[in-house]
Amino acid sequence: MIVNMSDGATEQQIDHIIQRIREAGFQPHVTRGTERTIVAAVGSGGRRHEIEALSVAPGVDNVVAIAQPFKLVSRQTRPERSVVVVGAEMTRTDLAGPSTVAANAVGKKRSAGIRIGGPEVVVIAGPCSVESREQLLETAEGVKRAGANMLRGGAYKPRTSPYEFQGLGIEALKILREARDLTGLPVVTEVMSTEDVDLISEYAEMLQVGARNMQNFALLRRLAVIKKPILLKRGPSASVKEWLLAAEYLLSGGNDQVVLCERGIKTFDTGMRNTFDLAAVALAKELSHWPVMADPSHGTGKQSLIGVVSRAALAVGADGIIIEVHPCPERALSDGPQSLDLSQFESVMRSLSAPLPAVLGAGAPRA
Amino acid sequence: MIVNMSDGATEQQIDHIIQRIREAGFQPHVTRGTERTIVAAVGSGGRRHEIEALSVAPGVDNVVAIAQPFKLVSRQTRPERSVVVVGAEMTRTDLAGPSTVAANAVGKKRSAGIRIGGPEVVVIAGPCSVESREQLLETAEGVKRAGANMLRGGAYKPRTSPYEFQGLGIEALKILREARDLTGLPVVTEVMSTEDVDLISEYAEMLQVGARNMQNFALLRRLAVIKKPILLKRGPSASVKEWLLAAEYLLSGGNDQVVLCERGIKTFDTGMRNTFDLAAVALAKELSHWPVMADPSHGTGKQSLIGVVSRAALAVGADGIIIEVHPCPERALSDGPQSLDLSQFESVMRSLSAPLPAVLGAGAPRA
Amino acid sequence: MIVNMSDGATEQQIDHIIQRIREAGFQPHVTRGTERTIVAAVGSGGRRHEIEALSVAPGVDNVVAIAQPFKLVSRQTRPERSVVVVGAEMTRTDLAGPSTVAANAVGKKRSAGIRIGGPEVVVIAGPCSVESREQLLETAEGVKRAGANMLRGGAYKPRTSPYEFQGLGIEALKILREARDLTGLPVVTEVMSTEDVDLISEYAEMLQVGARNMQNFALLRRLAVIKKPILLKRGPSASVKEWLLAAEYLLSGGNDQVVLCERGIKTFDTGMRNTFDLAAVALAKELSHWPVMADPSHGTGKQSLIGVVSRAALAVGADGIIIEVHPCPERALSDGPQSLDLSQFESVMRSLSAPLPAVLGAGAPRA
Amino acid sequence: MIVNMSDGATEQQIDHIIQRIREAGFQPHVTRGTERTIVAAVGSGGRRHEIEALSVAPGVDNVVAIAQPFKLVSRQTRPERSVVVVGAEMTRTDLAGPSTVAANAVGKKRSAGIRIGGPEVVVIAGPCSVESREQLLETAEGVKRAGANMLRGGAYKPRTSPYEFQGLGIEALKILREARDLTGLPVVTEVMSTEDVDLISEYAEMLQVGARNMQNFALLRRLAVIKKPILLKRGPSASVKEWLLAAEYLLSGGNDQVVLCERGIKTFDTGMRNTFDLAAVALAKELSHWPVMADPSHGTGKQSLIGVVSRAALAVGADGIIIEVHPCPERALSDGPQSLDLSQFESVMRSLSAPLPAVLGAGAPRA
Repeated sequence: MIVNMSDGATEQQIDHIIQRIREAGFQPHVTRGTERTIVAAVGSGGRRHEIEALSVAPGVDNVVAIAQPFKLVSRQTRPERSVVVVGAEMTRTDLAGPSTVAANAVGKKRSAGIRIGGPEVVVIAGPCSVESREQLLETAEGVKRAGANMLRGGAYKPRTSPYEFQGLGIEALKILREARDLTGLPVVTEVMSTEDVDLISEYAEMLQVGARNMQNFALLRRLAVIKKPILLKRGPSASVKEWLLAAEYLLSGGNDQVVLCERGIKTFDTGMRNTFDLAAVALAKELSHWPVMADPSHGTGKQSLIGVVSRAALAVGADGIIIEVHPCPERALSDGPQSLDLSQFESVMRSLSAPLPAVLGAGAPRA
Repeated sequence: MIVNMSDGATEQQIDHIIQRIREAGFQPHVTRGTERTIVAAVGSGGRRHEIEALSVAPGVDNVVAIAQPFKLVSRQTRPERSVVVVGAEMTRTDLAGPSTVAANAVGKKRSAGIRIGGPEVVVIAGPCSVESREQLLETAEGVKRAGANMLRGGAYKPRTSPYEFQGLGIEALKILREARDLTGLPVVTEVMSTEDVDLISEYAEMLQVGARNMQNFALLRRLAVIKKPILLKRGPSASVKEWLLAAEYLLSGGNDQVVLCERGIKTFDTGMRNTFDLAAVALAKELSHWPVMADPSHGTGKQSLIGVVSRAALAVGADGIIIEVHPCPERALSDGPQSLDLSQFESVMRSLSAPLPAVLGAGAPRA
Repeated sequence: MIVNMSDGATEQQIDHIIQRIREAGFQPHVTRGTERTIVAAVGSGGRRHEIEALSVAPGVDNVVAIAQPFKLVSRQTRPERSVVVVGAEMTRTDLAGPSTVAANAVGKKRSAGIRIGGPEVVVIAGPCSVESREQLLETAEGVKRAGANMLRGGAYKPRTSPYEFQGLGIEALKILREARDLTGLPVVTEVMSTEDVDLISEYAEMLQVGARNMQNFALLRRLAVIKKPILLKRGPSASVKEWLLAAEYLLSGGNDQVVLCERGIKTFDTGMRNTFDLAAVALAKELSHWPVMADPSHGTGKQSLIGVVSRAALAVGADGIIIEVHPCPERALSDGPQSLDLSQFESVMRSLSAPLPAVLGAGAPRA
Repeated sequence: MIVNMSDGATEQQIDHIIQRIREAGFQPHVTRGTERTIVAAVGSGGRRHEIEALSVAPGVDNVVAIAQPFKLVSRQTRPERSVVVVGAEMTRTDLAGPSTVAANAVGKKRSAGIRIGGPEVVVIAGPCSVESREQLLETAEGVKRAGANMLRGGAYKPRTSPYEFQGLGIEALKILREARDLTGLPVVTEVMSTEDVDLISEYAEMLQVGARNMQNFALLRRLAVIKKPILLKRGPSASVKEWLLAAEYLLSGGNDQVVLCERGIKTFDTGMRNTFDLAAVALAKELSHWPVMADPSHGTGKQSLIGVVSRAALAVGADGIIIEVHPCPERALSDGPQSLDLSQFESVMRSLSAPLPAVLGAGAPRA
């Protein structure tokens, strides 16, 4: 931390800052320039907020932080990339509980878990909301056939208006479990409240913190003490730094299975639903060792763009993508405009392996 | 809702839209232009999301909503302004519960309640966080003396980093109650989780939904069924429309004591903590009959600007302001840079009644 | 400037930075912490960009600027507030040139100039575009009667689409001159191109740099060498700092008659035309000694809000306001939705002198 | 255009709107709902702004545009993609003019032109500013060797502060010409003012409109009548729609060689220089038939991210990328932090042809 004194700061004011820096647990280090004096607060054990508050002390112009405030999420803590495994616990015993599928069928679907953050990208697909058993099972089988690795589907829905469809709740969770048992695809679904954490943990292999709850700190603290992986979406107005600090809540609380997910931010341009910040995926991977996914459905809100931005997400280094798929998007109870139908999803999946275009003249001999 | 067909839409595609509009509970109304056809969905009982989802139907260019989606919050429902009364329940019996103050002292402090939304503005003041008994009582008495009408103070704090001060919790609630009993000022404090609603309701006269929880719908639904007034802060990236829809969650769930509070939004300009959207106060009052307050402390994040922007908030029609005050801002555990000390707060209070500057030549006779 | 070395920076890398800081004309000052080393570049004569570029030197984490980059615009240069006088040159001789009004009539209208930045606020009013002689003269006389101090009107219009009305050009300038002669109100009009500077300077008492040209540096450099006051609107995505640096272009080039004007910025909320950043008016006045005006018409884009936000602009310390007025807004060729008609403008002018609402209980004796 | 009447609109008010729609050159079409009435303005020959202005007519709630306002830029005008050829005019005679290179050398470098918008992507590279002959020639030869197709370099620089390096002007143009003659790479350079258009047109094969000049309409109108291709950068706060309308200025004025270039927008997140809006590249290509490029240097402002976001630009469909390269970024007079050195650029060029990562399990047989 640097305390930047104003031009006319007195010796007494500078001494006060030096003393306060010591009280806050740092060593003060004074640099006197021709015009102004700066005082650095050096060391790692001090209380940062006490230095920040010095911005209103007499004779202080401003206070500047120079080190990043996060720890466990940072690559400085762990240079190698972390891998999060989803669904490794999907065993026969586990499935026998709330599942309605016969044990022997389950046996065959048993999974070793999906590794997010490894050399291959993971594709999560499914409807925005679970609307009915038929809708979900059809979607789950379709996305499985097309190559998806995990299933998504909302049971509890965060909706801007109270008059919109709010999700089927526990009924949706049961349908998701049935779909998981049929397809072997681990399930991720959103948790909106601390009170739902236990129930949802029973049914889902991964819990999603939605964008609007990224700074629901009570929820983050609750999720920090469960044993399930968390998909932490970036808030619509969260900086990358705030997003990583939200992850730090999970990590410092004890949950070390965190996957970040960029899903677009709010900007002045309303031509698309959000501004999909793909460079932030690259930045988050530079700053953190945890996996980072991307959500082209919310990122653009536009069916026709999902194929190319999915490819871009892979190009920029995303460890996976999450795509909304619905058997009939124009009849979806939520997010229809950004959902793919099953044949569109298959076509997007095929497009993921196509090569990037060549540079003009790259093949030709150069003069 | 208007479904705008694309240029080359076929008759079959138009017929499909007409049929889908009927299925969604609206009457279709077709207008054929020289270049394109539009189909209006007319009526009030239909399912809007089904029309929205038609944006991905074949032959459709886009879908445009023309009516506002909110109801109970709207001035169209109730043209007169609503007044929210805070603290009218502050009787001897109530206070006898968790309070530690002698009953006879309490009797003298008994309040008829603070009316928010009437002809006079309400001033809420107090520290960002309750840090100690001494700090809060000193602040409470100081702001009371300077003319504040209510006391604020955080017990449960939403902090960007898990390593920052998280609030004293129930201990803070008890200190707030003591301060209330001493000063007679009703208390507002933030609730961050559904699990804390009952406890905080016991201690505070008004519950605040913080900016980052504005779209914590589980929390809104829980607060909709309590009998306390709610101070609903606007989210840092919430449009005025989304803010009013968050209020609609409270209202449609049964809580009809809602006060809105503008506290600044996130924009590209980081020269101040937020961009204080004072015109949004005026717009919210135009659209809604509920009271609207303003928070110049978070709105600017800058001690030196709080006086003038408080005056601007009054000028623009705010029903009240909420200001952070701390006995020694440079030692505050949170929000020091934007807190006033007690003498600065007194000076801001005095400035509120000063007249606006005159227009050049307005007093002079005109040619 | 502070060069913040990364955790594992070597001695050699630190030495390289020390040497580069010397080459750039600063003194290096090293502070070694337990975890990292910072090197301050001290002094005022050095080349800042060379220090900024060190952010890509080996072993450097980042570079932080601690001093503001502006000079002539800053209150540190001049603590007293500057006043800009508009129209003092409006003498008989001047008017005899391009004016079409008889000299004796002109004699009576002669002005001592409008002082912007003094104790009283200045009101500029008039149509977005000059559309016809009748429209402008009617507006000019109306706003004069209601108490406006200056006349605005666009001759060259920056329009988002080439198919929109682009202004009457020189014909509009002549009509503005005629209106000035009839009413005595000095004229401000926008200049969009270096090529129009001479012509417009002949006709207008003040030249406006529109928001979209705030960083048209060729235009700023050209306007820096004329003898007319400039109204410099803030760009829709300019920070306050960038806005002040645009003013610095005018000042460092020789024009010392600069009036800043906040007119709203672009944010995610499209419920109003712009987000009117009234706190930025206060911040600009804190940082700069030059006058700062506000434009509630563009700031909100909404006729019904202009009255209250004008009052808020005065409350926050604006030295004046600029309001769009049209005899019949619904027939305006541009900006109709945000224009007042003459009777609405009169009513806004009257509202400017009304007192702010009182604080609840402020008149009553306190317990 | 749809005029949406308010709830209590009278018959007289509706009749007034109907009449005004006719006056504006459209056919009115009335739809009466149970709650409100809407009036569509049908047809293509009318004056849109007259309908927009009706938002302030009595009884009107709001006015909604349903068709896009652009024409020549739109894919609806021309479904096939347009190709812009740069540098086809680079013949011996042309070069004989201001060039200092011997004619016979020139003969060998002669180019058939670079096709932007074809199946292969184009790479433009070079320094932010031309700083010296040595710096530019070294860079030009280096980027040519690494596979770049065109050379960039600033002669006239738009700088936020007047105290920053402003470019070498005509001297830089001459150096660019020399570099072109040596390497055969066509040159693109920024034009900031109408007054420089002729001079720069003599020296450069393509003229760039910088982001801050995207809505410098005087400049756009001037560039519309020259015979050189234009690289039109998106403004930092321009929506895709506004960007396309800026292109419409060029096209409607007669210049049909327009290449769009996304370079990042300003948002609340300042962790990178801009928010690189890669999805906007895809959207612009969906809406327009003109080529769209991307600028990862300004898009991120961060050397270390340029490789991956360049790949993402290709993935999303960009017709080319433009990258800042400097022999020694830490000594660059501008944009050092976002410039690659020559070996980094080579490495980025090589990375462009690497395949995208595979989907987990995509190669394996599916259960």
